[in-house]
Amino acid sequence: MTSIGNENDQPAARIIDGTAHAATLRQEVADRVEQLKAKGRAVHLTALLVGYTPAGDMYAQRQREACEKVGIHYELRTLPAATDAKGLSAVIASLNRDPSVSGIMLHLPLPSHLDATAMQYQIDPVKDVEGVNPANIGYVVYGHTLIAPCTALAVIDLIKLTGVPLRGAEAVVVGASEIAGKPISLLLTEQMATVTLCHIATRDLPAHTRRADVLVVAVGKPGLIGADHVREGAVVIDVGINRITLPDGTKKTVGDVDLDAVMKKAGWVSPVPGGVGPVTVAMLLKNTIRAAELTHASVG
Amino acid sequence: MTSIGNENDQPAARIIDGTAHAATLRQEVADRVEQLKAKGRAVHLTALLVGYTPAGDMYAQRQREACEKVGIHYELRTLPAATDAKGLSAVIASLNRDPSVSGIMLHLPLPSHLDATAMQYQIDPVKDVEGVNPANIGYVVYGHTLIAPCTALAVIDLIKLTGVPLRGAEAVVVGASEIAGKPISLLLTEQMATVTLCHIATRDLPAHTRRADVLVVAVGKPGLIGADHVREGAVVIDVGINRITLPDGTKKTVGDVDLDAVMKKAGWVSPVPGGVGPVTVAMLLKNTIRAAELTHASVG
Repeated sequence: MTSIGNENDQPAARIIDGTAHAATLRQEVADRVEQLKAKGRAVHLTALLVGYTPAGDMYAQRQREACEKVGIHYELRTLPAATDAKGLSAVIASLNRDPSVSGIMLHLPLPSHLDATAMQYQIDPVKDVEGVNPANIGYVVYGHTLIAPCTALAVIDLIKLTGVPLRGAEAVVVGASEIAGKPISLLLTEQMATVTLCHIATRDLPAHTRRADVLVVAVGKPGLIGADHVREGAVVIDVGINRITLPDGTKKTVGDVDLDAVMKKAGWVSPVPGGVGPVTVAMLLKNTIRAAELTHASVG
Repeated sequence: MTSIGNENDQPAARIIDGTAHAATLRQEVADRVEQLKAKGRAVHLTALLVGYTPAGDMYAQRQREACEKVGIHYELRTLPAATDAKGLSAVIASLNRDPSVSGIMLHLPLPSHLDATAMQYQIDPVKDVEGVNPANIGYVVYGHTLIAPCTALAVIDLIKLTGVPLRGAEAVVVGASEIAGKPISLLLTEQMATVTLCHIATRDLPAHTRRADVLVVAVGKPGLIGADHVREGAVVIDVGINRITLPDGTKKTVGDVDLDAVMKKAGWVSPVPGGVGPVTVAMLLKNTIRAAELTHASVG
């Protein structure tokens, strides 16, 4: 975490350094992998890719590198694009039963004839490293989280790095997607924040966001949140990832928060890039080691 | 729904009549049961009671009466109090497989050696008439609800009776329990309300509740919500059920809302008794017919 100045010498928000935290998480995972290996137990993640696409394959190769760096064995199984629900269910069932497989993930999008949620539901909750099985979401609601979605876990970690207490805090989440906003709001409630979940139908968004001690934005709309949306000193976590084209034609990755403007008002900002993104990637590794520990606890 | 006056001739809230709505739901269920019977399909609810207690048995007998009045066949299976997790799982698995069983419910509390959520997770989501399988909660988060918890569904129904639109409404839920507040907030989000979930750690409760177009209170604390907590004209749904002793020693069932005071300020009130309670009971019947239709759709 670094404090940066600005041209007007106003107090500036501190940056929450997701890249540094991701490195810390990877080291933690590497240590836990070593501990399991010392007991003769390998950590093995099987990823399923239905239908070869260059993008899917490239993503999987990056995942392989990330896993191998921390000692997790990564296996990619590419299934034919024509695989039907029954066929994919059979593959998932065999991985569920296989005690050498500690984690299972399913690359999305699936071909359109397959229902992603129905397939994710087949993954044994203790092997569901993405935390996307509806049962795992349900366990979050029930307050005994087994494995939660990576992005939501990343957001909580980044807030905790600031030292701002979540219990009793006013937390406002903008964006009610299944993969980000809703699980984030559930985990914030689990931390005893008072959570307001805003979305496209919210009437007066700035009135809500200005109340927030902790503001999490997960919409996918560049510049959505400016200084007027933010309470002085607030913690702002930007979950948006948008590719924009600058006037000179170059491309740039930005979040949903107008970073320059908000830095002058907020207390802490998790920026894009360098905030939630790298922590989410590292969280998949952490969920994988957690799955391995859960699986070994039940079978070993 | 009736409009009632008060001694000061102030405008008074209208009562949302849960008892009348429950009767409507029961008639709807009876009609759908008839339709299934006309196709040769019976609707059969199996309730599991682990360990005989007079209270559990009495509750089950009331359920039997409610089911039989609408043509649902009710079967109570009482298992020994010493039944272990493996034994109960085996019973649930056999009911899941039995095509003649359309719905399954598990009476709580279970004996302390059994984990309720772990057992509820065993119930096939399409037969889970209480909507308590974590997977069914997860499906609510994912926005394609299969069967939701009865109390939460009752709250949504009662709000809809008022005609007040939920899309874009400020909704505040007080109480973040697994069985009531959290599922209610999820269903309100599904209806596109802007939802704030308050609880024991909330710093300034009245500031939140006074913002609410729709206020849902599910805490279990008599008198928690007075007129000062309520916005003029708001819809107030009282989910609390409390038995209190009056100064003269008689007992009375009240909610969390100071009904007399709030009636003078709110636009609509769902009272206790006569509001959420009877609708929740009827909702179990509605979920049972829904389960029967889902089960028959998949096996028939």
